[in-house]
Amino acid sequence: MLYFQQMLGTAVFAITGLLAIQKVGVDLFGAVVLGIITAIGGGTIRDLLLDQPIFWIADFNYIWVALVTSLLAFFLTNRLHKRYQLLLYLDGFAAALFGLVATEKVMALQLGAPLAVMMGVLTSIGGGIARDVLAGRASLLMSREIYATPVLLGCTLYVLLRDTFPSIRIAGWIALILTSGFRFLAIYKGLQMPAIFSTRQR
Amino acid sequence: MLYFQQMLGTAVFAITGLLAIQKVGVDLFGAVVLGIITAIGGGTIRDLLLDQPIFWIADFNYIWVALVTSLLAFFLTNRLHKRYQLLLYLDGFAAALFGLVATEKVMALQLGAPLAVMMGVLTSIGGGIARDVLAGRASLLMSREIYATPVLLGCTLYVLLRDTFPSIRIAGWIALILTSGFRFLAIYKGLQMPAIFSTRQR
Amino acid sequence: MLYFQQMLGTAVFAITGLLAIQKVGVDLFGAVVLGIITAIGGGTIRDLLLDQPIFWIADFNYIWVALVTSLLAFFLTNRLHKRYQLLLYLDGFAAALFGLVATEKVMALQLGAPLAVMMGVLTSIGGGIARDVLAGRASLLMSREIYATPVLLGCTLYVLLRDTFPSIRIAGWIALILTSGFRFLAIYKGLQMPAIFSTRQR
Repeated sequence: MLYFQQMLGTAVFAITGLLAIQKVGVDLFGAVVLGIITAIGGGTIRDLLLDQPIFWIADFNYIWVALVTSLLAFFLTNRLHKRYQLLLYLDGFAAALFGLVATEKVMALQLGAPLAVMMGVLTSIGGGIARDVLAGRASLLMSREIYATPVLLGCTLYVLLRDTFPSIRIAGWIALILTSGFRFLAIYKGLQMPAIFSTRQR
Repeated sequence: MLYFQQMLGTAVFAITGLLAIQKVGVDLFGAVVLGIITAIGGGTIRDLLLDQPIFWIADFNYIWVALVTSLLAFFLTNRLHKRYQLLLYLDGFAAALFGLVATEKVMALQLGAPLAVMMGVLTSIGGGIARDVLAGRASLLMSREIYATPVLLGCTLYVLLRDTFPSIRIAGWIALILTSGFRFLAIYKGLQMPAIFSTRQR
Repeated sequence: MLYFQQMLGTAVFAITGLLAIQKVGVDLFGAVVLGIITAIGGGTIRDLLLDQPIFWIADFNYIWVALVTSLLAFFLTNRLHKRYQLLLYLDGFAAALFGLVATEKVMALQLGAPLAVMMGVLTSIGGGIARDVLAGRASLLMSREIYATPVLLGCTLYVLLRDTFPSIRIAGWIALILTSGFRFLAIYKGLQMPAIFSTRQR
């Protein structure tokens, strides 16, 4: 179930990654590479930093899913754009899922809650940032969109719930619902960072 | 022989790396750093991902070759530009060589043919992409030039030939000749990706 | 004492990192991430390449210091700008310190003086370069400012002194004073790379 969700998340990240760079003008090869990087980039940096085996070298299915989805997305761009709103919600769900799974991974390694939260956020947003840097776009670090904040709060919530709840599964579901929910709200309402939290206005 | 070829490839990558960023306007230090990164960047990322010792930490001669070549190239830029066409062909040969050597490295580690091909391509183009990102240039992922495709096909061919041929050396030579040949043709004819494989036209 | 200095250096890097990207227009989350990356990026790449435990995973205080300093710097930007000149000198000192500590780290691992100097420079400038790439700014590799050269010379001096001096502590202090001194001079006099060492004039 979790495995299936992660594969779905990988596919969604590859698609939204590809749609994000589509305006830049890119060829099949570059598009597929950027789709794959969006999907696996965050987890790759996490595993490198933790000195763990890279997850997609241990299980190449992640690459296959990202590769096939990117290929399909490349040729179905127009049709996917019509579903962009839906994809954005799926992307928010995938970001929450990847963040929480990474947080649990670090907690299971007993490396401490602060590192777990940090790695959760990194896993969630690292791929998209890597893609933006490679595509020469302003990365989401430069954006006022509320994208990383729900993941940050959700992973923090998770490490708090994890030790108080009888089951880490229930803690995970609660955190997943609240994290996705916050992101869904940000998409739906078009929420932006309050001006006091931005250097733009000064 | 292979060692000598790899050192030659390192030198060629350092030179073409330096010529690529020359228009950006860069100082000796930055130029040499970018030349070295072009030469060793791809293999470095490969070794990090595979959790192998970084090849140039194991054998610092790679750095010396890249360093000295970058220094020379910095002061001989004008003269080298007259040989740019020749350098482009040498660069194609080096890209093919590095890709195939990396593919064989992963095959020897028994990590599977798909990962081997992926690492071959990454080793081949990773350094140039890292250089472009650091220099603020549009990377070759954004370009319609046919650069990575020959390496992708060549490494795929190699893993297919490797298990059918009596000698991996012969398989390697065949793949090297065909990979370089495809790239040489792309340079000579100025081949570009067909429009159907590009998001530019849409 | 050295530990305290390194924490101070981390804080200074986080502040100057944040001030460097302030004009780009960035929100609290992005600003703090970029501040942290400036502070710990160079050492992180060093530890990844050397296959050593990442220093801030081993001791999370580095992250706390960078995090709190970045947060403070975000809200005190205007006040800090008035102290920019002082911060620039502190930054030069931190760059020298980090470079020399990294050089000693590699020397202690007996990986050879050339690698030690290379890792010293990388540790010193890696974080700032990573920040510039992520913020879409022209990195210091593209700049004519004399920033990396003092560290390069200082780390080289250190490996030379280290084996001739009775105490590595004295060698370290001499190298630290000379490295910072060269950088201070470059800031004070506004020194730039001589034109012969630049591709700009050609």
